[in-house]
This record gives sequence, C-alpha cells and structure tokens, in this order.
Amino acid sequence: MTDRDKEVTKKLEDVGKQLLSQIDKSQSPSYEIPVRTLNNIFFDKKSGTIKLGDKMSERQFLNIAHSRRFMQTVLVASEIKKVIESQATVSIRDLYYALKHTIEGTQENTFEDQGESDPCIEDIEASLDLLREELHLAASAKGIIAGDVQLKDGKDTIDLTKMGSGGWSVPSNVEPNQIEFKKMNAEFLLFIEKDAVWRRFNEDQFWKKHNCIILTGRGQPGRGERRMAQRLNKEFGLPLYVLCDADPWGMYIYSVIKQGSISLSYSEEKLATPSAKFIGLTTRDVEAFKIPKEVTIKLNQLDAKRLKEMEGYEWFQKKEWKEEFANMKAKAYKLELEALSKKGIRFITETYVPQKIKNEEFLP
Amino acid sequence: MTDRDKEVTKKLEDVGKQLLSQIDKSQSPSYEIPVRTLNNIFFDKKSGTIKLGDKMSERQFLNIAHSRRFMQTVLVASEIKKVIESQATVSIRDLYYALKHTIEGTQENTFEDQGESDPCIEDIEASLDLLREELHLAASAKGIIAGDVQLKDGKDTIDLTKMGSGGWSVPSNVEPNQIEFKKMNAEFLLFIEKDAVWRRFNEDQFWKKHNCIILTGRGQPGRGERRMAQRLNKEFGLPLYVLCDADPWGMYIYSVIKQGSISLSYSEEKLATPSAKFIGLTTRDVEAFKIPKEVTIKLNQLDAKRLKEMEGYEWFQKKEWKEEFANMKAKAYKLELEALSKKGIRFITETYVPQKIKNEEFLP
Repeated sequence: MTDRDKEVTKKLEDVGKQLLSQIDKSQSPSYEIPVRTLNNIFFDKKSGTIKLGDKMSERQFLNIAHSRRFMQTVLVASEIKKVIESQATVSIRDLYYALKHTIEGTQENTFEDQGESDPCIEDIEASLDLLREELHLAASAKGIIAGDVQLKDGKDTIDLTKMGSGGWSVPSNVEPNQIEFKKMNAEFLLFIEKDAVWRRFNEDQFWKKHNCIILTGRGQPGRGERRMAQRLNKEFGLPLYVLCDADPWGMYIYSVIKQGSISLSYSEEKLATPSAKFIGLTTRDVEAFKIPKEVTIKLNQLDAKRLKEMEGYEWFQKKEWKEEFANMKAKAYKLELEALSKKGIRFITETYVPQKIKNEEFLP
Repeated sequence: MTDRDKEVTKKLEDVGKQLLSQIDKSQSPSYEIPVRTLNNIFFDKKSGTIKLGDKMSERQFLNIAHSRRFMQTVLVASEIKKVIESQATVSIRDLYYALKHTIEGTQENTFEDQGESDPCIEDIEASLDLLREELHLAASAKGIIAGDVQLKDGKDTIDLTKMGSGGWSVPSNVEPNQIEFKKMNAEFLLFIEKDAVWRRFNEDQFWKKHNCIILTGRGQPGRGERRMAQRLNKEFGLPLYVLCDADPWGMYIYSVIKQGSISLSYSEEKLATPSAKFIGLTTRDVEAFKIPKEVTIKLNQLDAKRLKEMEGYEWFQKKEWKEEFANMKAKAYKLELEALSKKGIRFITETYVPQKIKNEEFLP
C-alpha cells in the first residue's frame, strides 16, 4: 500500500468508526455529505473553476427516506476499502455487480441498477474530498498521448517519443502514486478534441518539431486526460492550448477542460486547468485564413439552442467570446477542424497552429 | 515510398490511363466495379469469411445516372494518389473536405456531404482489391493492446510488455509496411470486448502469467484491431480467443471478428480470422460457475429481436450455438462480463478464463 492508500483507507475507516460510536451511544447513525444539486454549485472567479458550495445535508439511518441510500453508501464504502486493500482497481460497473445481491431473509436487492451505486460513489468522493481514482475506481479512459516526456507507470518506464503511429493510451488513474513524470522536455501541451486530428499531428511529428506534448480525449475528454493535463500544467508550468471544432460543442469541451463541469463540480479543483487557452478553431478563422465557404456547415436549430445556452454561462462573459459567439450567429455557420484540409493536408500542423502560437492568438 | 505504395499508385494510375485511352478513342469513359449490394454478398464456407460475389457493374461517364458518381470517384482516386505521394495518411473526413468545392462556372458542389465520398472510397477498395489503409486512409482507431511481443512502428521499437496501466493505442494502419512484429513470445491472443475488462486483465498482468497478448476494440472493434488479430493469427499461428458479454451484441462482435461483416465484405479476407474461438461469456456459465441470478439481466424486446436474427445467420448454424441461443431464450436473461465480479474482483482473470482455456471450453 502506498502512503496515499493508507490515508484514504483511514478516511474510510473514520466514517465507519463514527457510525459505530453513534450506535454505541444508541444514537441514530448519521453522516454529513455536501449537497450536490445546482443550488450549491457555483463558478468561483478566484480559482477559475466550478466548485461545490458549503451546504451540507445529513443522512440518518433511522429516517425511512434515507435508510436505503444510507445502507447503499455504507456498502459501497466498505467494498472500496476491500478493493484498496487487495491493491486492485475496479470499474464502477464492477463495483455495482460485486455488491448486488438480495438481502438475506428479504426480497430486497441492495441495488437495482448502476444508477443507484454511482451516486453513492459521488457522495463518498465529495464528502471525503477524494478523487475516485484514489478510491481505486476507474472511469473509462479513451485518450491518447505522445510527445517529449518520459513517464513511469508502476514499474514501466514509458518514453512518449517512441509510441509510433499509435500513441500511448492514457489510463483513468494518473495520480502521482501511479504516474510519475521523468525527463520533461516539452514546452507546452496541445489538447486536441478529435482523434483523427491528433493522428495528423502525430504523423507530422508536431510534438518533435515544436517540443510539446499532444493529447486527445476523443471528444469530451475523460477524467484521466483532464487530470494529466492539469498535472503537466501545475507541475511543470506547461501552457495548455486547446484545439476544438468551431461549434458550440467543441467550445464547450474547451470550457470543461478549463474550468470544469457541473456534474463533477466536487472534483474540479483536481481536474480543471483554469489557465488553459483556446487556440481555435473559430468562425473568424474563415476570413483570417481564407478558408473557402464550401467547407463551412450551416448552424442547425440544435446548434443555435446550444449557442444561446453557452452565451449565458458566467465563464464565457468575456469580450473575445462574446465576439466569437456573435460572429457565429451572424455568419450562421460552424466549422470542423478537418475542414482545414481544404487548404492542404498539413495546413493545420504547418501553418494554422504554429501561426496561432507565434502570434499568441488565443481566446481566453 | 515503400514498394507497396508504388504498387498501389500504379493500380490507381492504370485506372486513369484506361480512362484516358477510352477518351482518345472517343469512347465514353467507363470502369467496372464489383456490386456491393446484398445479392452479391455471401458466406463462403470454404474460407469461413463473408465475401463479395463476382457480379460487376459498369459505370459510364456519358450516362446521366452515373456521371456524378463517376466524377466523384475519379476525384477521390486522384486525391488518394496525391496523399500517397506526399507520404501522409488522412482520415476519410479530411479527404471529403479536401475535395469539397463548387465546380467552376457552376453552382454544383463536388460533394454535398461525406455520405457521397465514402462510397467512392469503398468502390476503389473493392475494385482494386486494396485495403483503405493501403490507400493511406485512416479509419478511427480505438483499441488498446499489451502483451508479450515487441513491434516496430516506423522508426520506433515498441515493447508491449512495458506499457504500464495504459497500454498501446492500436493505430488504424497495421499493414506490414507500417507495423513489423519482432520478438514474439506470446502463445495466444485474447480479444476482449470491453475496455474496463481489458484493464482488469492488464492490471492483473494476465498476459505475463499466461504468455499472451490482450487486445480490446472497445465494443465493435475497428479495422486496425481486427487486422492486427488476423496478422498475429496468420503469421505466428497464435490462437485467437474472443471474450464478450453473454448477449446478442457481444456474440455478434465475435462473429464479426471471426468471419466479417456485410458492410466490409469486400475486405474480409484481410480482416477476418475464421479460426477464432469464443471463450465466453455464455448464459450456460451461470450454472457452470455458480453465478448468482441477481447479476443476470432480463432479456428485453430488442435483445429478443436481435437474438432471432442471429439464429438465422448461416455462420451460427452450429450445434453449440443453437444450444446457447436456446438456453438464452429459455432463461430469458443475458449477462455482462463485469457480472463475474460478483464472484470476486479477480475471478475472471484467475479462474474463469484460465479454466476455459485449460479445458478448451470454446464455442466454435
């Protein structure tokens, strides 16, 4: 067990001990958890991340409205302790199945579906201020990375300059007790929305020519990719540039990488990278880079609706973003990164991104 | 350019030369392509793969019903030649954007959407008997691999025993001119349907204890993963075992890995692995391994419908499969791989799969 595992186990044990001591005193067992509904979530301007407020709610075992969730949360906490002790990592689906059973002497199942066990995990994460990766729970991981850095993952030393055309698959858990960075030569990190675009950058060895690391989360990134980006930014001061489609969905992906999401508000301090900068694509690039109109795509109703929502978000209340959204509405088109191929296969790696970096043409 | 690139370029040039010679003789330019509709697709018992029949159709430039597709196919072929000559790989989306434009002096676009350029690529693949990877076109790749083998990808030597918790991300193109296998110590290949289950096998270093390679395609595998499996099977005689959920979807994934799919019938000789064996999960495992009923899932209407379709497929007309389908119908449940976690976190890696391999309990 690592020191961190011991700390985490102790936090779980303390919860159990508290419950036992309440029972010893013939009190109704109870515990407190932070409220995770919208009215307790806010954008913290100082840290630049979405955060959980300080409203707490108490769960009582002897309250009929609480007792099922109470029992489930205790079951989950106890199984997590076992998982950590056996030094394994399990998926949240494994955890659900491991705990699912009919309670002896009753017709009652501990859990009917995973929708009942997942919120218990989130309660534990939020109340103990732990990442689920520290609880040895793995989310699905889909990202790929390559670039000028060497890392140690368990006993393996992995050189991200030697990953061929494939790249290294980023795991869910990139906490310091699993992943250690060695030999860091990169000067910045380029977070690319799309797999196919990442492959263009990898094939052109962009990371070699520009001393950087290239990372993709294949759409909305997972926790592993976001935490990896945050660690590289915090521990080595690497600037983080995000490259997305010029549409409300790509821009939202950027905002999640930068300051987090509502659903993970309780973990954003460990996942978000507030200093991230948006390197593109924007609708204004169409004129700036003389991109033929034929490769733009008409905004549809869904896009327009999403765009309106985005305009309302507190973290997009900046002059540059207001201008970009206004332009998108005025032109009524969006644009995919692949559309830059119209200007030549390697336009994106040889002209577009280098020029934006050189001129520091970022959106905040 | 590799020798293969030269051969491929020559095939493309020959098409162009043929068209030119027809024009020189004042004939209507035309070319032949294999028919790719269902009535020209069959399951070839001898090779054990889904194949394209020998029906051909002729496309005439001076036939108004053909001329748009004719023009598009020639555009695609010509762009592919350029891509190969520039020694790049592009996605089929890049290719679409690179070619999309309004034809000079008209209001006509070369392509309205990617749904028009993709079939042209398939026509070229089918008529020239080439994989799209040989045309330097990349499909999206999502698989991960680890195990007792070293490979060379371009200039990088990659040791798949040293991939940590992440694994190596399998690229779309694993053709011999891109990926060369070195130092092969593995004795078999385990193809795992699900990412989360693959991570269990990787964390438990199953590939080390059992001298094998573990591969996942994260659901329905991509071309890269299937071609990788086929090459390992053909070139080193590695048996291929497929581990899927006990439901019609998992079993269909197995059938695609084994003998191919209708939509890629023209490439299945290079993608399918007819000797693949199904290692599980089956509904009969519930009794064989004493799996508690609580972790089974009721078959829903969609499952039942899919199951009925599966029973009709020629390649599932085998005693063992008929029995499995009958059992699934009789019990009216399905089962996920993660359900084995009910028997213990490592039950799947320490008991289930080793026992099935030892006793050769495979479905054909």
